[in-house]
Amino acid sequence: MFLFALPDHAKPLVAPVGCPFVMHYCMRRLLNAVNKKIIRSYQSSAMALSRFEYVKQFEHEDKLLSNCWIVVRIDGKGFHRFCNVHKFDKPNDPDALQLMNMAGMTVMQEFNEIAVAFGQSDEYSFVFRRDASIYQRRRDKLVSYVASLFTSAYMFHWDRIFHSRSLVIRYPPSFDARAVLYPTDDNLRDYLSWRQADVHVNNLYNTTFWNLVASVQHQLQQRTDYVPKGNHSVTEDRQCVREK
Amino acid sequence: MFLFALPDHAKPLVAPVGCPFVMHYCMRRLLNAVNKKIIRSYQSSAMALSRFEYVKQFEHEDKLLSNCWIVVRIDGKGFHRFCNVHKFDKPNDPDALQLMNMAGMTVMQEFNEIAVAFGQSDEYSFVFRRDASIYQRRRDKLVSYVASLFTSAYMFHWDRIFHSRSLVIRYPPSFDARAVLYPTDDNLRDYLSWRQADVHVNNLYNTTFWNLVASVQHQLQQRTDYVPKGNHSVTEDRQCVREK
Amino acid sequence: MFLFALPDHAKPLVAPVGCPFVMHYCMRRLLNAVNKKIIRSYQSSAMALSRFEYVKQFEHEDKLLSNCWIVVRIDGKGFHRFCNVHKFDKPNDPDALQLMNMAGMTVMQEFNEIAVAFGQSDEYSFVFRRDASIYQRRRDKLVSYVASLFTSAYMFHWDRIFHSRSLVIRYPPSFDARAVLYPTDDNLRDYLSWRQADVHVNNLYNTTFWNLVASVQHQLQQRTDYVPKGNHSVTEDRQCVREK
Amino acid sequence: MFLFALPDHAKPLVAPVGCPFVMHYCMRRLLNAVNKKIIRSYQSSAMALSRFEYVKQFEHEDKLLSNCWIVVRIDGKGFHRFCNVHKFDKPNDPDALQLMNMAGMTVMQEFNEIAVAFGQSDEYSFVFRRDASIYQRRRDKLVSYVASLFTSAYMFHWDRIFHSRSLVIRYPPSFDARAVLYPTDDNLRDYLSWRQADVHVNNLYNTTFWNLVASVQHQLQQRTDYVPKGNHSVTEDRQCVREK
Repeated sequence: MFLFALPDHAKPLVAPVGCPFVMHYCMRRLLNAVNKKIIRSYQSSAMALSRFEYVKQFEHEDKLLSNCWIVVRIDGKGFHRFCNVHKFDKPNDPDALQLMNMAGMTVMQEFNEIAVAFGQSDEYSFVFRRDASIYQRRRDKLVSYVASLFTSAYMFHWDRIFHSRSLVIRYPPSFDARAVLYPTDDNLRDYLSWRQADVHVNNLYNTTFWNLVASVQHQLQQRTDYVPKGNHSVTEDRQCVREK
Repeated sequence: MFLFALPDHAKPLVAPVGCPFVMHYCMRRLLNAVNKKIIRSYQSSAMALSRFEYVKQFEHEDKLLSNCWIVVRIDGKGFHRFCNVHKFDKPNDPDALQLMNMAGMTVMQEFNEIAVAFGQSDEYSFVFRRDASIYQRRRDKLVSYVASLFTSAYMFHWDRIFHSRSLVIRYPPSFDARAVLYPTDDNLRDYLSWRQADVHVNNLYNTTFWNLVASVQHQLQQRTDYVPKGNHSVTEDRQCVREK
Repeated sequence: MFLFALPDHAKPLVAPVGCPFVMHYCMRRLLNAVNKKIIRSYQSSAMALSRFEYVKQFEHEDKLLSNCWIVVRIDGKGFHRFCNVHKFDKPNDPDALQLMNMAGMTVMQEFNEIAVAFGQSDEYSFVFRRDASIYQRRRDKLVSYVASLFTSAYMFHWDRIFHSRSLVIRYPPSFDARAVLYPTDDNLRDYLSWRQADVHVNNLYNTTFWNLVASVQHQLQQRTDYVPKGNHSVTEDRQCVREK
Repeated sequence: MFLFALPDHAKPLVAPVGCPFVMHYCMRRLLNAVNKKIIRSYQSSAMALSRFEYVKQFEHEDKLLSNCWIVVRIDGKGFHRFCNVHKFDKPNDPDALQLMNMAGMTVMQEFNEIAVAFGQSDEYSFVFRRDASIYQRRRDKLVSYVASLFTSAYMFHWDRIFHSRSLVIRYPPSFDARAVLYPTDDNLRDYLSWRQADVHVNNLYNTTFWNLVASVQHQLQQRTDYVPKGNHSVTEDRQCVREK
């Protein structure tokens, strides 16, 4: 399979010993020669492939309508459990929120066509400009790549954020994503208002609720020296409310 | 905002000191009472939200045609660079491939409607059964979640795999994903044949190429004691071929 | 299968002879009784149907994005031939254009959510308002119904328009249709400008061309008293140009 | 705007007077010369158009998945009223059904990729072969064209069918259409079974119902010599049942 013997052919080409430039030149020339042969065989293999290649026609490219704002919203999968397993502070764990923000920033740095991003709880909305042309606005590509990069950045920055708490990630978290189109600026503003009102209501409720829980636990503790071992029932209650 | 004073009201309810069951019962009752009030205010807040909630109607659920095989194929973004930065062995790094397989297994464990999966290089195809009903076959959800979970598992298992080589991940990797429908079993078989033929040709080429590179480097080394410091040009050549 | 005997039961109910109201009442009561039985058997038949009814789930409803202008443009199929066969005047036959307008008006009368319509040659654009909710903005329904109604009205008014010329329709004409979404008012205005510029250029060309043809024919006629029997070659030329 | 003077240039070309072939040749040459100039100006006009032509990018081509059966089902709009206005016989008017069949045949003659068609009542299903490539399987085109051609043929053959009854069409009928994909032969067979079971049940019901109506009317007539002038209530009843 080795198509040429280096010692014989290479000699005249080899420059003064140790000269990296000439050697690179030599290697490149030789390899180019090999490449051409391989490319040819590759191409004839490709011919052989063509019997199956028709399956590519089943791929449809759903492109997002031009001149609309594209919102890609990622959302944590089962983060209720994830928060409990990793003992995030309730209602808001500053480190965990900071980690979300770092992941969001990574996505914004990657896509310079994102105009604004907005995060709350375990979700993050990325607003791509009307004229964004990323991946020719292909839905699958955009949605999956944002979800993947966000996830990746979330795990990448974990150690830095939770180092002081010696918090080790116990299982791989994940996020889904969806793309939504908004034709007018008003629609987009209302979308952001919708998310902001949502976070406001949730925060109001959660802050009240968890302060109440803390207060009850504190009082019970003082009276009985009893420390409840789990907050299972509390969690259930909260879940009930949130899932209404 | 605290809706009741525990000491006064709670007393008659508190069971014999230290009894965890009764305390839980008590706490739950109190919290339920609070919850109901909060839910009511929450719902009236929800009323207030409704002015913006119309934006949800812009979300379209593209559902994948029933009774077709669904192939979700994930594909590494810029893995050429990722492999170089992390000095993966060429042409095949057993550890890196093993990591891909572990990520693939995590996805298969999560979705029990995956019939078969097939990985090669930096891509992985997951074949969902014809009758898969996951997320009601919603395209965005499926595509983004598979991409995210694969990415997450890839990073989660990194340390275990590369521990012995003390290989630290330098930047967050990512994968895109697409969903393709195949109506018949023959179409699906041809899809798998297509990917298999692809991996075969690529492997043949890469194995030959990198052995050749190693052989040239070895000979040059013997003659000149020169060790080329980079394989920049070689990489370029290979890239040329692969991108044809 | 006849479930009741009318003479016996009906007698007491029958009102004074000839009273239509009472008879109707009687008939309705009897038939209602029958209906109930039939409905029951119908429903159990429906049960029998259910084995096949799953095929309905394969119907996907593609809904057009909210708050966008919807343009449904219909376009004549093979109208070049249709014009020739029916000997429409070139470049513009006032009657044929009038017929297009009458068909367009029928569509506008049917859909009160059409804001503006614009016709030229063998095409017609109907602009549905941003907030149009017709058929819940289902693409298939909208596109097919507009095409069908336009076609129907075109044929319905044919006789009235072409009566004086005793022009009989020789074969069924048809139109295709497509729906296009425009997110902003500017985009819509540019769409209309695009069609207007198109009709302007085409008219300029066609008017010049057919005047030239007429002039040549006139001159040849004067010199030779020869009247060419067909304009086959001319038609071909024009076709060449239009199909560029 | 007239670009050349015929008498001067044309003379040497004109063949013996009255020879149609040469004259055609002459005219074509002259017109070609003109055409070229016009095409050039046309193209520069097209340049002028280009400012608006970007609006074409808003057109999305939704293509129907390869290797699936395509069922295009057309369905009469408001045919309940249409049947009443034109006094079609209940439950089945042979002429009206024959007209539907003639329209269906016209569609089948136009599209040679239709494998089978099935009509009942005011609907018709056209089954395109798995490998149909008509309009590159573009959804909008296919759906709108089938609806339009069916409508057109329905009106075209009206006079022939209803000539003997001197039945004049009172207003333009219309049909909507939808396209549904079936991945397997079993799914397609079940689709046809579904429609067949539907027609069977409907026919059974309608035949019974209208015979009953006729029988009641007959008996009332015999007894009272009264002929009810309308069947309004009856129609309502039937509608109730059908719309369940």
